[in-house]
Amino acid sequence: MKQITGGVTAAKGFEAAGAEAGIKYTGRADMALVYSRVPCRVAGTFTTNVVKAAPVLWDKDIVENSPYAQAAVVNAGIANACTGKQGMDYCREEAKKAAELLKIPETAVLLGSTGVIGKQLPMDRICAGIEKLAAAKSDTLEAGTAASKAIMTTDTINKEIAVTFELDGKIVTVGGMSKGSGMIHPNMCTMLAYITTDAAISKELLQEALSASIVDTFNMISVDGDTSTNDTCLAFANGLAGNAEITEKGAAYEKFREALNFVNTYLARTMAGDGEGATALLETVVYNADTKQNARTLAKSVVCSSLTKAAIYGHDANWGRILCALGYSGVDFDPEKVTLYFESRAGKIKIYENGTETGYSEDEATRILSEPEVTVLADMKMGSETATAWGCDLTCDYVKINADYRS
Amino acid sequence: MKQITGGVTAAKGFEAAGAEAGIKYTGRADMALVYSRVPCRVAGTFTTNVVKAAPVLWDKDIVENSPYAQAAVVNAGIANACTGKQGMDYCREEAKKAAELLKIPETAVLLGSTGVIGKQLPMDRICAGIEKLAAAKSDTLEAGTAASKAIMTTDTINKEIAVTFELDGKIVTVGGMSKGSGMIHPNMCTMLAYITTDAAISKELLQEALSASIVDTFNMISVDGDTSTNDTCLAFANGLAGNAEITEKGAAYEKFREALNFVNTYLARTMAGDGEGATALLETVVYNADTKQNARTLAKSVVCSSLTKAAIYGHDANWGRILCALGYSGVDFDPEKVTLYFESRAGKIKIYENGTETGYSEDEATRILSEPEVTVLADMKMGSETATAWGCDLTCDYVKINADYRS
Repeated sequence: MKQITGGVTAAKGFEAAGAEAGIKYTGRADMALVYSRVPCRVAGTFTTNVVKAAPVLWDKDIVENSPYAQAAVVNAGIANACTGKQGMDYCREEAKKAAELLKIPETAVLLGSTGVIGKQLPMDRICAGIEKLAAAKSDTLEAGTAASKAIMTTDTINKEIAVTFELDGKIVTVGGMSKGSGMIHPNMCTMLAYITTDAAISKELLQEALSASIVDTFNMISVDGDTSTNDTCLAFANGLAGNAEITEKGAAYEKFREALNFVNTYLARTMAGDGEGATALLETVVYNADTKQNARTLAKSVVCSSLTKAAIYGHDANWGRILCALGYSGVDFDPEKVTLYFESRAGKIKIYENGTETGYSEDEATRILSEPEVTVLADMKMGSETATAWGCDLTCDYVKINADYRS
Repeated sequence: MKQITGGVTAAKGFEAAGAEAGIKYTGRADMALVYSRVPCRVAGTFTTNVVKAAPVLWDKDIVENSPYAQAAVVNAGIANACTGKQGMDYCREEAKKAAELLKIPETAVLLGSTGVIGKQLPMDRICAGIEKLAAAKSDTLEAGTAASKAIMTTDTINKEIAVTFELDGKIVTVGGMSKGSGMIHPNMCTMLAYITTDAAISKELLQEALSASIVDTFNMISVDGDTSTNDTCLAFANGLAGNAEITEKGAAYEKFREALNFVNTYLARTMAGDGEGATALLETVVYNADTKQNARTLAKSVVCSSLTKAAIYGHDANWGRILCALGYSGVDFDPEKVTLYFESRAGKIKIYENGTETGYSEDEATRILSEPEVTVLADMKMGSETATAWGCDLTCDYVKINADYRS
């Protein structure tokens, strides 16, 4: 497997576009299209929030009931969440418009929205936006990038990636894009992620691979502990790579999963580092835990701790907060056995062992914690399971962004 | 029942003191003593964090195994948490010193610490502080206030309260003090709370009343979602009111519970409003829920939501974040049935009903949200259970306080 330039248009047969629809923002694209020239197998994972946005309900229905899909239309600025029957009617209208222009069935059009909750979509501008998208769609890498920029809200960078690997002598590509910066605590996350691949794979295995992958990727990030109403991750597989269709688990399936995990890990990690107001990525690796689930719970508890996040912002080696966060995670362990380290490009330092601090140098710790990517390592000495979680520091800018998000 | 002036010295036979020990702070008291002239029944609830501070382990042992206790010695500045065997040895030394000076058994001395995790107590200063406390202790209201000020860390106001009620023709008093501003997400919380009463009540019922009370008081507040290593709530009952000892559930027990709940609710609510950096108290009342536990879970989810907290700071009626927080709480409900209101001294406004916003006035909502105490009301229309949770807004000052807490 190797990483290549590109995103959702890297795989064969996929086109994309971004367009300025003026839904909330001005002077930037705020609608995106992902389109496949041929019908795709589609898999999806969605927010577990009881309050689900209209496009989430729309997509869930298609993923569960349609054998194929062929396009995703996404807008930024308004989430189309808590919009009642009107919101669902607008989904149907939006899909109908895209279906007509793209000459595909309505049930092949998936929808995504992100932005303010509770406002209705301005359907005239949405429809005009879809016309622009249909006219502009292209299979160039630039078109993929344009789409990845159009779905940003408070994101400061666009997120896209692509990898290739070989199967049956054919080159298979998996690409993806995502957005998400606040209300990020996916279970699923306000993240939207779109994965495109030209692999030939059955719908069942595509869904299984996606569902398994998000557990250790998108579901292991947190910016603010708020699980959105709109979280959606969709994977489109159009089969144009020409490999023998993957219909059972085995070496080919594992290769596909590896590529999908790589793409999802990159997108998830980049979202965490680009958390609202963040100045640093906070990575936590818990290893030698007794079970995989406990490793995940422990790692996520650290990246969710407001106090740990504020300390990282201050480059302060306040390890007591990390141990405290492990302690209230709900996982049982012996604090005296745990060893804690900080690591970054600037070095690695052991800070806590045998129940007390190690007498480390505060200056060295501060130097390590002043990097843009910081890792906390926790050796639980209970078993052999590992998990990694990603978050970011908590800054005044996070507060400022969210004190008046709607204005 | 009526509220009176005072705190831990309001009940008969209780004395208190505050003293400058120079543990971390200068120019202010940082050690406190609560003392009863006669032995007390004692009950306690402690942090559920796996990582428990040394004084928590010390107190748990006494509460579970000693029939009586008579004093609590508390320091601010250092938490004596993650301090290994040395930390436990220091507890014993501290209790021994206090026992000698107060002429009571070592096992009658409870200990509390709050502050930085991971540092050892400076025992020379602690012992000198205990000497000052023993010399200064008094039953005046001023002495109670001095103790409540000495246990503050990042708190901006001291927290104390007292109430009286009649039992068997005798006046019974329940008083209390607490501290807590950050690392507040009690389960139990870095809160410390000390309740004193002259009621005569059996140890078993005192513990049962306390354990039941914290579920809807201290355990319903959150400043930052971080459950501390030191959370402790102790209740001392010395029997000097002269009522017939409460040894079974009935009218007398209910009167006592009502007074205890009133005191704990006041202390919990005041802690939430004085959360680190807070400019407003955020109260959430969930009513007509199907079960009491679901009502609690829903209410707490709202006060824990970083996005809701930031919106309150911005006086922004971003109700979508509230519905979102209810939605990811883990409780199942129909979002279309929920009605949401904002309320404060400035008025009450209905903002969401039948699945969409009500068309309320943003100006009026902003006016209501600009008060120092703001209430969110959620009518779930599923049953008849109610719960209230308290938190605060999320501000830049919270980040500033915690980015360099140790320096």
